[in-house]
Amino acid sequence: MSRGRSISEIIGIINKYDSFLITSHINPDGDAIGSQFALKSLLEQKKKRVTVVNAEPVPSAYGFLGKWICPGELKQKPDFEVAIILDSSNLSRLPEVVLSLLLDKILVNIDHHISNEKFGRLNWVDPEASAVGEMIYRLYGKMDCKISRDGALALYVAILTDTGLFRYTNTDSTTHDIASELLKIGIDPHWVAERIYGVNTLASMKLLALALSTIKVSDNGRIGWLCVRSDMLKKTGASFQDTGDFVNYARSIRGLEVAIFFSETETKDEIKISFRSKGKTDVNAIAKNFQGGGHPQASGCRIKGKLDEVIPMVIAEVQKALR
Amino acid sequence: MSRGRSISEIIGIINKYDSFLITSHINPDGDAIGSQFALKSLLEQKKKRVTVVNAEPVPSAYGFLGKWICPGELKQKPDFEVAIILDSSNLSRLPEVVLSLLLDKILVNIDHHISNEKFGRLNWVDPEASAVGEMIYRLYGKMDCKISRDGALALYVAILTDTGLFRYTNTDSTTHDIASELLKIGIDPHWVAERIYGVNTLASMKLLALALSTIKVSDNGRIGWLCVRSDMLKKTGASFQDTGDFVNYARSIRGLEVAIFFSETETKDEIKISFRSKGKTDVNAIAKNFQGGGHPQASGCRIKGKLDEVIPMVIAEVQKALR
Repeated sequence: MSRGRSISEIIGIINKYDSFLITSHINPDGDAIGSQFALKSLLEQKKKRVTVVNAEPVPSAYGFLGKWICPGELKQKPDFEVAIILDSSNLSRLPEVVLSLLLDKILVNIDHHISNEKFGRLNWVDPEASAVGEMIYRLYGKMDCKISRDGALALYVAILTDTGLFRYTNTDSTTHDIASELLKIGIDPHWVAERIYGVNTLASMKLLALALSTIKVSDNGRIGWLCVRSDMLKKTGASFQDTGDFVNYARSIRGLEVAIFFSETETKDEIKISFRSKGKTDVNAIAKNFQGGGHPQASGCRIKGKLDEVIPMVIAEVQKALR
Repeated sequence: MSRGRSISEIIGIINKYDSFLITSHINPDGDAIGSQFALKSLLEQKKKRVTVVNAEPVPSAYGFLGKWICPGELKQKPDFEVAIILDSSNLSRLPEVVLSLLLDKILVNIDHHISNEKFGRLNWVDPEASAVGEMIYRLYGKMDCKISRDGALALYVAILTDTGLFRYTNTDSTTHDIASELLKIGIDPHWVAERIYGVNTLASMKLLALALSTIKVSDNGRIGWLCVRSDMLKKTGASFQDTGDFVNYARSIRGLEVAIFFSETETKDEIKISFRSKGKTDVNAIAKNFQGGGHPQASGCRIKGKLDEVIPMVIAEVQKALR
């Protein structure tokens, strides 16, 4: 389906129906969060009834964008005609409590993952888009809708975070053109970055210090890893949520091909693992071997076992997969 | 002097003379490095003779931009009419070995520091510019010069690094418009970011771990600091150059207003200090009290003394300056 046809079909659906539910994947990132709020803003301008529903509340770093509804807060099943699912490559990325709301509804799938399984009645999937936020920005243009300040803020957050501050391979001149337009609507890039990236705590910095002291690189210099043990959390007062970007410290080491972050979890004897590849090695395939998944350059899984057993076993698997 | 008049006077000088020396401050950052190479490229297009001279070689992370000449490599004193000094708020930021080359020459000062001391015969100082690279970009436009791929790469590096990946307060829609234009000339933002930000070593990560273990926050939660001692360098095998962004780890702590990084230096009993403000407190003014300088939100200085004496003295000064 050509991009032009998909977007005009989406517009057809929006014009035809009156009531919409918007949702996205578990552990929502900045693009999932921002694009939901931006689409809500657009639909409300068009006088539609809109409910945004996700299993968990808006993560605190993104609280400035607003609130959505969690299933537990619903007094009755929401009444709507069309469910729009954003940034989700397949339906198994939606939690069951949300999925159960979507039965017998028209499903519209808007996403930019190349692995998208086209699960909707209508599927607008554009792997060329830097973020789903960029697709929603285009939708504003095609529908001749003015972007409000709140809408611009949500779109900016989506694009900023999914391009890693305009530096990942999905960034091109169009990304900057859009950012320029959004800033003109009144977005303060420093204010936004402070809210999303300037929210470390003294405890999380102490935890990072301990985690970095565990960094190791394989003899061939191609694999780097670090870990967090439960006792480090106790010692520093930090939490598992503080370890979200730790894998990138290993990834930043020159010459590495694959970076890995291991952490003990609340679940006894289960190790959470994040993989990052600098491009050649497909870490999605590696994670799949352990019943995990993700993208070719960023993936994750969980493995039963103790840290001292799991680390050498995983390193050995990665060594075999190196290209 | 209005911006319009300054830039046209710069163009007048470029048109009038044939031979130029370009230089910038010690410990050159991405803007100092990028804007020098971008200006060299512009002047060479105009068939000028150009020598770029700096006391130290191009830092390895920026080696992809090219090479300049160090005074030790000069067989004779370079012969030129005009010296263009970039990104330097005063002449004391130039090392003596470079200053000695500039005697009796026409000095042109192009800078965006609000603290610039207008030391040139001609001074084009624009504190509104995100980077000196943005000013050189404007110069290309005003001189109707096509930007080569090498020129675009140098300009992109200048703007990318001085805006902290398009997130500091100096970023506005114009910054993104320029980035968009530069990307169209063939710049790959991911390739550039990997070269500048993906070049840590195992040693530098070990040093970061030790530095982060020193992080402290003042009782009122408004000042955060960390330090590097010479013995940490010995222990890890890292170097002073590896500490360039350490201050930002303190800066990222939620609720802080001022972040400070202290490090012992090769010069015995001299402490190098970097200040960052989140906006309210003018750290340029603080650094000036210690014969340093910079921007209101990012500045530095050097103080004679031992780490244990200098830290409490500086913290006390910052406490007084808090807004």
